[in-house]
Amino acid sequence: MNVEIINIGDELLIGQVVNTNCSYMSKKLDEFGIKTKYVTVIEDNSEDIKQSILLALQRADCVLITGGLGPTKDDVTKYCLNELFGGNLVENKQVSLHVQQIFEKRGLSYTETNHSQAFVPDCCEVIFNGVGTAPGMIFNTNNSNLSPNLRNTNKLVISMPGVPFEMEKMMEKVVPILIKHYKPETIIHKHLLLSGIGESFLSDKLVPFEKEIQKLNSSENQQHFTLAYLPNGGLIKLRLSVYGGEFEKSNKIINQLYTDLKSRTKEFIISDNDKNIAQVIGELLLSKNQTLTTAESCTGGNIAHQITINSGASSYFKGSVVSYCNEIKNSVLQVPNTVLEKFGAVSEQTVIQMCKGALKLMNTDYAVSVSGLAGPNGDGTPTPVGTVWVCVMNKKDKYRTNNSCYNTTRQNFIDRATNLALFQLLTLLREDN
Amino acid sequence: MNVEIINIGDELLIGQVVNTNCSYMSKKLDEFGIKTKYVTVIEDNSEDIKQSILLALQRADCVLITGGLGPTKDDVTKYCLNELFGGNLVENKQVSLHVQQIFEKRGLSYTETNHSQAFVPDCCEVIFNGVGTAPGMIFNTNNSNLSPNLRNTNKLVISMPGVPFEMEKMMEKVVPILIKHYKPETIIHKHLLLSGIGESFLSDKLVPFEKEIQKLNSSENQQHFTLAYLPNGGLIKLRLSVYGGEFEKSNKIINQLYTDLKSRTKEFIISDNDKNIAQVIGELLLSKNQTLTTAESCTGGNIAHQITINSGASSYFKGSVVSYCNEIKNSVLQVPNTVLEKFGAVSEQTVIQMCKGALKLMNTDYAVSVSGLAGPNGDGTPTPVGTVWVCVMNKKDKYRTNNSCYNTTRQNFIDRATNLALFQLLTLLREDN
Repeated sequence: MNVEIINIGDELLIGQVVNTNCSYMSKKLDEFGIKTKYVTVIEDNSEDIKQSILLALQRADCVLITGGLGPTKDDVTKYCLNELFGGNLVENKQVSLHVQQIFEKRGLSYTETNHSQAFVPDCCEVIFNGVGTAPGMIFNTNNSNLSPNLRNTNKLVISMPGVPFEMEKMMEKVVPILIKHYKPETIIHKHLLLSGIGESFLSDKLVPFEKEIQKLNSSENQQHFTLAYLPNGGLIKLRLSVYGGEFEKSNKIINQLYTDLKSRTKEFIISDNDKNIAQVIGELLLSKNQTLTTAESCTGGNIAHQITINSGASSYFKGSVVSYCNEIKNSVLQVPNTVLEKFGAVSEQTVIQMCKGALKLMNTDYAVSVSGLAGPNGDGTPTPVGTVWVCVMNKKDKYRTNNSCYNTTRQNFIDRATNLALFQLLTLLREDN
Repeated sequence: MNVEIINIGDELLIGQVVNTNCSYMSKKLDEFGIKTKYVTVIEDNSEDIKQSILLALQRADCVLITGGLGPTKDDVTKYCLNELFGGNLVENKQVSLHVQQIFEKRGLSYTETNHSQAFVPDCCEVIFNGVGTAPGMIFNTNNSNLSPNLRNTNKLVISMPGVPFEMEKMMEKVVPILIKHYKPETIIHKHLLLSGIGESFLSDKLVPFEKEIQKLNSSENQQHFTLAYLPNGGLIKLRLSVYGGEFEKSNKIINQLYTDLKSRTKEFIISDNDKNIAQVIGELLLSKNQTLTTAESCTGGNIAHQITINSGASSYFKGSVVSYCNEIKNSVLQVPNTVLEKFGAVSEQTVIQMCKGALKLMNTDYAVSVSGLAGPNGDGTPTPVGTVWVCVMNKKDKYRTNNSCYNTTRQNFIDRATNLALFQLLTLLREDN
């Protein structure tokens, strides 16, 4: 069973908004063994919307659409679907009441424009949107006047709001509908997050493993196996997948392959359960009832942000100091001015002192510190733009330092420096365990 | 002139990676008046790649491809292009030397797998990749054995690496090539970032303005105008666009419309130059030679991160304290324990004290503080999950507070709380100016 996702919105085609809906939806579908085969992004333009839906109905079994359901003039998705499937717009009383209540609750007046959201095609089934005004809609090609080759194919076309958190809530209802309607084939993914090895070296190392997979694929098994490499911000994620076959059997074979893969890469593994590095660190700290602080300069709070994105972080993360100038490195983190003057803010000595100061100030078991030159401009010293120093330290003053130089964009520099710091922290935590 | 972007990569279709390449590329093209009309995301699968390129050549004037150029087995883009255009893979000496040098510089051995990157189709022009191993490739339909309807259409198909910063660097070379080849039509966008008004109210308010646009579009002008609404994290961005016409004339009309639009929305405007709220704040502080600190709880460093993403932030941002527990709110930010006990950590009184403490600790002109319950779990008090309090204060102790409740995902809560805090800060800065 293949899905095509159509994301509608001018903003997606001029780069004003990153298409996070697509990644959220495909990830969610994937968890339930539903494969996203195509993604198409188009404008709020009736002709493109209709053409793209027709193309998607030819090459996919199911079409999920987001966007273009708002109350404003540029939102035309509902009208396109109504036309394609041959319906009439009628007022839905439940939606109407709900939209009115939202406006009342917010103390806002209910206008004609808002009221238009309560009208839906009479040839679709409505999905109630508890957290917004635009309802979702389920169309079935069996209930349409599409051309004969598309009619009676029993394919679903589901339209959802483009506002990310409204779509996310609605997906909780959409996934069970898809499972019931399509009964998807087996898909199982296994992930390994690695650090400390380059992509091509890893690939060379895994040649015998890839041969193993090829052998399985060319045999008469019903299953098909793949291995993918996903490098990101200095880390590499490996994804081992199996498609098809009976669940129990596919699961057994992929587990054997996965055990083999782990033993071949064991010295580089950060996580084997699709958790990110900050989550792995959080679990380790939680299991030992230990606490963490960060003392950041060039990462500007991003390490703390990556840690606190994960719910439950308050159990092990006490806080952070961002010291974006020497004055604060000295006054808050107690880095001696002599160190800052002699070695510079971007130096091994400074990051060691930042950790010491943070451990004392925050009274935690571990600290991680980072200082670097994100660029694009230098700091007037000979230190090259892109240089970063990190230090991790436990409360017994045991520490590790590391440095690197990333010749890249400001955002990518921040991501890489964050991952370098988190990887060093994880290494120290594992040593201490 | 219309572009189709094809992003290739299994990881994009199972949600493991957010497709930031697409937004980066379309934004960059848009700056130079080149319109992205379609985006297609597909797997690393030869059949899909070839079919998608052929479809794109039918509906777009230019095809930009990312991904599938790595050294590993799952990367097949180059081989698909070679087959479609009817070339032979030959070694490119410059690329070969460059890849070897990269490996030497890193002290790594040069393997057969790496060497394969130096082979390119003899029917394309190579784009040198200074920051990675996979070269870019430019194909022209005139130099191909495609089917007769696609051949001799003088369309370019350009293949780039999928690694974001390698693609970004390469786009600097690709854009001038496109401009030279296609001489694109006029496109001008004007942006307004607004806060403090809901989307449907804004839409009602702008009915007369929309009518003005419709009148212009239905007249005999060569230009076509659009207005789009882009809500995001509690803010609304308006985008006014003109397509076509002679540049001078189109520019003149859109400037008149833009002035009109600004006067209709003036009380809600954050920025009129496509800058984000953190940049607007940074410029205001810089112009007054003033400094800022943040005292964060539930936003976990994200406000500091949003500020320090912008280069030059070190001129006005001195640092931040993330106090993720009461102990640190008291010991580092000097919030009295009596306040924390009587009113709770998520309260107006606490955020006021956090600002006071941060101003003193960091010795800045302004402070912003946030405390809230990101969820999904509560803190054991009756405070509902989603509650957030913010305070902004200047060093004369003048302050503003605000609160809200966002019933949403953890990530969206953090984004909204961040935007609420930044908007309050901007309001105070403007009052003080």
